Amino acid sequence: MTVWISRRPEADVGRELAESRSGPGLLAGVRLAVKGNVDVGGVATTAGCPEFAYVPDADAAAVAALRAEGAVVVGKTNLDQFAIAVSTGEADIAVATDTAGSGRVPAGLQGIVEIKPTRGLISLDGVVPACESYDCITIFASSLLLADTAMAALAAWAPNRSWPADTTLAAPPTPVVAVPDELPHLDPLWRAAFDAAVTRLQACGVRIVTVGFAPFLAAAKLLHRGALVSERHAAITQFIDAHPDAALDPAVQEIVATARDIPAYRLVADRAEVRRLQQLAMASLAGVDALLVPTAPMHPSIAEVEGDPVGVNERLGTYADFCNLFDMCGVAVPAGVAGDAQFGVTVLARAFDDAVALDIAALFTDEPAPATPWPLAAADHVELVVFGAHLLGGPLVHQLTDRGARFAGEITTAPRYRMTALPTTPPKPGVTRVPEGVDGAALTGHRWLLSPAALGRFLAELPAPMQLGKVEFADGSWRTAFGCDAAVPGEDISSHGSWTNALAAGAVRQA
Amino acid sequence: MTVWISRRPEADVGRELAESRSGPGLLAGVRLAVKGNVDVGGVATTAGCPEFAYVPDADAAAVAALRAEGAVVVGKTNLDQFAIAVSTGEADIAVATDTAGSGRVPAGLQGIVEIKPTRGLISLDGVVPACESYDCITIFASSLLLADTAMAALAAWAPNRSWPADTTLAAPPTPVVAVPDELPHLDPLWRAAFDAAVTRLQACGVRIVTVGFAPFLAAAKLLHRGALVSERHAAITQFIDAHPDAALDPAVQEIVATARDIPAYRLVADRAEVRRLQQLAMASLAGVDALLVPTAPMHPSIAEVEGDPVGVNERLGTYADFCNLFDMCGVAVPAGVAGDAQFGVTVLARAFDDAVALDIAALFTDEPAPATPWPLAAADHVELVVFGAHLLGGPLVHQLTDRGARFAGEITTAPRYRMTALPTTPPKPGVTRVPEGVDGAALTGHRWLLSPAALGRFLAELPAPMQLGKVEFADGSWRTAFGCDAAVPGEDISSHGSWTNALAAGAVRQA
Repeated sequence: MTVWISRRPEADVGRELAESRSGPGLLAGVRLAVKGNVDVGGVATTAGCPEFAYVPDADAAAVAALRAEGAVVVGKTNLDQFAIAVSTGEADIAVATDTAGSGRVPAGLQGIVEIKPTRGLISLDGVVPACESYDCITIFASSLLLADTAMAALAAWAPNRSWPADTTLAAPPTPVVAVPDELPHLDPLWRAAFDAAVTRLQACGVRIVTVGFAPFLAAAKLLHRGALVSERHAAITQFIDAHPDAALDPAVQEIVATARDIPAYRLVADRAEVRRLQQLAMASLAGVDALLVPTAPMHPSIAEVEGDPVGVNERLGTYADFCNLFDMCGVAVPAGVAGDAQFGVTVLARAFDDAVALDIAALFTDEPAPATPWPLAAADHVELVVFGAHLLGGPLVHQLTDRGARFAGEITTAPRYRMTALPTTPPKPGVTRVPEGVDGAALTGHRWLLSPAALGRFLAELPAPMQLGKVEFADGSWRTAFGCDAAVPGEDISSHGSWTNALAAGAVRQA
Repeated sequence: MTVWISRRPEADVGRELAESRSGPGLLAGVRLAVKGNVDVGGVATTAGCPEFAYVPDADAAAVAALRAEGAVVVGKTNLDQFAIAVSTGEADIAVATDTAGSGRVPAGLQGIVEIKPTRGLISLDGVVPACESYDCITIFASSLLLADTAMAALAAWAPNRSWPADTTLAAPPTPVVAVPDELPHLDPLWRAAFDAAVTRLQACGVRIVTVGFAPFLAAAKLLHRGALVSERHAAITQFIDAHPDAALDPAVQEIVATARDIPAYRLVADRAEVRRLQQLAMASLAGVDALLVPTAPMHPSIAEVEGDPVGVNERLGTYADFCNLFDMCGVAVPAGVAGDAQFGVTVLARAFDDAVALDIAALFTDEPAPATPWPLAAADHVELVVFGAHLLGGPLVHQLTDRGARFAGEITTAPRYRMTALPTTPPKPGVTRVPEGVDGAALTGHRWLLSPAALGRFLAELPAPMQLGKVEFADGSWRTAFGCDAAVPGEDISSHGSWTNALAAGAVRQA
């Protein structure tokens, strides 16, 4: 069995890879598999149905974005076998769609990583719709870092839905992760693997809480009951209208006939029910950063699938189907084994909390979380440099992390500043620029990235005498950083070079 | 003909009004008419259909919100006659729903004001759904200020959809308003009245541009073609399921039977078409603050309505039907007469630009725009006090107004500050606090209200030596305001009391 519908000539791929490797792209030298329903210019798009095949002139927006950063298309895969192409090493990444778990489930079963971003963030131009309201572009890779890099390319080059002005850019230092209060269809071995995953999170300092899973399961059931699926049938109907000459398979003809009979009032009622369940589910996640679920509950045998294909499919989707219905994002990662099978978990988060899901999913890998996760490629953000109580580990750092700020490393000012110990509670340093002609110190601080709204809210609550404005750094840049009102007296502690050093030297009188 | 379905006993209303007038509510002494499909506890909700009448225990969320601020319910009106109750003076305000212009059109024809907020901002709890995806609570009043006050009560007490962190809080100083490139169904007298409205805006400094109206008209047509209306029929179907004992009128039975036959694929296709048209329309409004349309194109005679009820209804909705489909907000105001008829215009704006629509609509009234428009009752916002180039009329004020900031008046610091003329381009004042024991000056500045994201973006672009932090004011409050890095030398101009005075006195050297 081949995973490929069509594969580009090896010579072409090899030449393009060599060119790509010498280029500047984020994805230089990366081999890309493309799911059958996603357009690659000049290659037939089949969507798993030869009657519907057409040859598009142009790449889908997502494929063009990945190619713009150096990815090289190896070929197109059968609908659900892109994950296998990555797991066998025949491709480094795959781009696909994930409507109801069609991406996450194979990723989980094959031991690879999937990032399913917030629905609509990435353009669906050039993708054959399955269920347009719930379709979502996704990325598969063998490592979280590579998947993240590919998502950064998509976010930058194929944007669609706008990010909010208060996007959360990081999981908090002590995340709160919910687990379902029931785990249907999970064999004992798989349940043990899930328990081990929960234990791993706890060992990383995550606080685990339980959430009622009933509304999530109810939404997944709705997806299989019929009316919501009518959108899928609508897509087929539109496709037929656009391709009247296609010779129709009798099975397809029957689907289309059935689709024409589903009444609109049932779709309206099911959509309203999804909204109601979504409100319940989101309310139950208040105060929670992410939801942890098994990616799939089992690995069915071929005999099991042949015996009850519909039932097995529905059970496989138990932990994936509700995700796009509830406008959640998710990251699926391997998390050990369940007996002989690969076991995987998915970290799900609210819409636009993609960086939160990524940070928590990274706890299951041996990789560090990406320093600049892919949402930063598209979500508006600003920088703030801090010198005192907001340093990593400082007593006021929660004022930044509660607002979704992301730590971005150390930085040192130009040697033009003075640091004083201010008579505040808690103690804070006052950083002021020295006048022209006066010797200054180079002071070390921490960089934080945060949303514009987070910076505005932080400033609105900042007490006197602290001020924020531009400070000059050793690399010649001017960045938004802490200053203070110079009228407040304080002892000069500039010679220590940083607040941390001054504290360590006992140069700051603690209240 | 009475406008009332049911009217509360005059003695009860009178007693409640007297109580309300002595209370602190925003709507003390205000008489409220309620549309038939909106619940008032203990009064039958008929939704215009006696078979469906039920007596709710509780007020709809919107009614409860208005009562919480002192409004007194006078009675319930027939479905489209709440506007008449306000125009005849039998009520001061009315609360209703507006799905496809059912509110705006009567408001326009009766010479009263309607505020139709961004869909979903106000809770629909306790409202009989018409077309749930597009239903919207609205307020009618004889004056814009009173309508705005009622909306503030709704926004504060019956919130639903969240406001974004970058809400625009004001129209810019020179708004750009689009007018349609075609004005279908507008009689010559009505066209002249519309032209006069455009001229009035231009006289107020508004820049007028033309926008292609085709996508707006196409969406309105879709609303009447059938599939979108199926949601309305779905609501009836749900209602029947909930009230199985209701004796059904044959006409209603026929509607329900028809509703059961509209196929889902047509609804899916029409929804997708609405989204496509919305994208086109919104793209055409890029750089535009609002869209001005006639509220209704004509005032039909009874004979015209009887001759072609469906056609007249469709023509009346030409300028209103697309509004909720495109997720726009709007304010309808009287704008003179067209022959013997009242003429009205609607100012439409993008979702959440409710304050923009309000400011521009105020140009048609003899009232000033509300100083703190109703979105401020619910949308997160912060304050910034400025002392120099960002004063109203200053050279950098666009850095605030481009980000949707709203001018909120003058304010003076505590007498603890010093102002210097900084050597910057353009010239800027540096405000610093004087040390303890040193005499300071009381300095006058301007207050701006802005979204948290606007403040964050403003700070991120603020150049040295300007800084933002807390300043003490004459009333004892500490507010976020301009300071500066004290290392920058400058001439002391504190004695002038404000930057404006210092400039007028020639105390600032211009570059």
